[in-house]
Amino acid sequence: MVRVVLVRPEHPGNVGAVARAMANFGFSDLVLVDPRCDHLSDESMQRAKHAKAVLRKAVTCASLEESGCDWLVATSGKLGSDENIPRLPLQPWQLAGRVMGVRSRVVGVVFGPESSGLRNDELERCDAFLAIPTSKRYPILNLSHAVTVVLYELSIARQGEPLAYAPLDAEHKRVLLGLIDESLDSLPFQTPEKRETQRLVWHRLVGKSFLTRREGFSLMGFFKKVLRRR
Amino acid sequence: MVRVVLVRPEHPGNVGAVARAMANFGFSDLVLVDPRCDHLSDESMQRAKHAKAVLRKAVTCASLEESGCDWLVATSGKLGSDENIPRLPLQPWQLAGRVMGVRSRVVGVVFGPESSGLRNDELERCDAFLAIPTSKRYPILNLSHAVTVVLYELSIARQGEPLAYAPLDAEHKRVLLGLIDESLDSLPFQTPEKRETQRLVWHRLVGKSFLTRREGFSLMGFFKKVLRRR
Repeated sequence: MVRVVLVRPEHPGNVGAVARAMANFGFSDLVLVDPRCDHLSDESMQRAKHAKAVLRKAVTCASLEESGCDWLVATSGKLGSDENIPRLPLQPWQLAGRVMGVRSRVVGVVFGPESSGLRNDELERCDAFLAIPTSKRYPILNLSHAVTVVLYELSIARQGEPLAYAPLDAEHKRVLLGLIDESLDSLPFQTPEKRETQRLVWHRLVGKSFLTRREGFSLMGFFKKVLRRR
Repeated sequence: MVRVVLVRPEHPGNVGAVARAMANFGFSDLVLVDPRCDHLSDESMQRAKHAKAVLRKAVTCASLEESGCDWLVATSGKLGSDENIPRLPLQPWQLAGRVMGVRSRVVGVVFGPESSGLRNDELERCDAFLAIPTSKRYPILNLSHAVTVVLYELSIARQGEPLAYAPLDAEHKRVLLGLIDESLDSLPFQTPEKRETQRLVWHRLVGKSFLTRREGFSLMGFFKKVLRRR
């Protein structure tokens, strides 16, 4: 199940245009995190055209954590240039192939504020990253255009077969990431930075892979073994 | 070479948003056919953000014929339901695979007015048709969203290899279509309607196939033979 998550959206017109694009591609689950504009304003409603129902049933919450998603996928124009953190982004069609058909888990596709994008602490909270290939000379898409491209790709993938498996739920994903952190803490590293890099790589790996329940439990078993050998 | 052709656009904000999407995906060639709004207005310029140059160098003309394109591809939400005319639409990625890499011919991607879409006589003038797969419940995309999806697909295809051939130019395409019409006129049909259907099927076939020069001349040879046997 795909949920569109807009973080601190600023322009009511954009939120309305996002709702329209969602309805155009058959999506209706919209969450606004700490919105900076009124998504039920005249401008927003007018831009939504025949998708006003999407705006009316949109849910507002205070933080990404409260968005109720099992997996969070961040869309950001910043990704390509950031070489410090292993945020190797997925292409839209790769995301589509991995998450569509997932029925029992909520995959949140996260879009940041128009003027500044997502904050680093918010990017850190996401499991995977998505980059829309754009011109290097002007890479920043309008918010509703970015949503349109991602939902277009997701809607095409939906026409295929549903996935035969469900990815790990949020609770067990947390358990796995906790075991990984604990394991890394128990191992010797030359510097704390090297341990931190390892940790980030592992978290990204888990985030990008949309592990199945079986894969997740198998990895937990591995890290439990590592911890026992301490 | 891809040219974006907006026919009778009505809202300056949309034209500005189209210009921005063009720059985002690395396109800059914009033609406005009989525009119903001012593409250099404040609203248009503001929505274009860092793509104002695209608006400033946009060309205005009176009809599709004057848009200077060798091939015209119509994008329309009406296509799916029209069963009378064989306007079998291409999917966006099919168009992308066929036209990108073409350097020496101008392929115009044509978008109709926001409120009504392209007229039938305009659709008739186009060589091929493009449909963006959407929800049946709300299929009509915002104009700039439709442009965004098409240019996104085209820009992905551009990253691949350029095509090894150039499609037939507009002048020779006209010669070929003329030979086809002449051939059909020379053959017996039970009713004029059946001949007209044949004609439409042939025109669509030529339109969709983006024939190479070699293929085009080979087909001309065939129809010349048909005419000589008369």
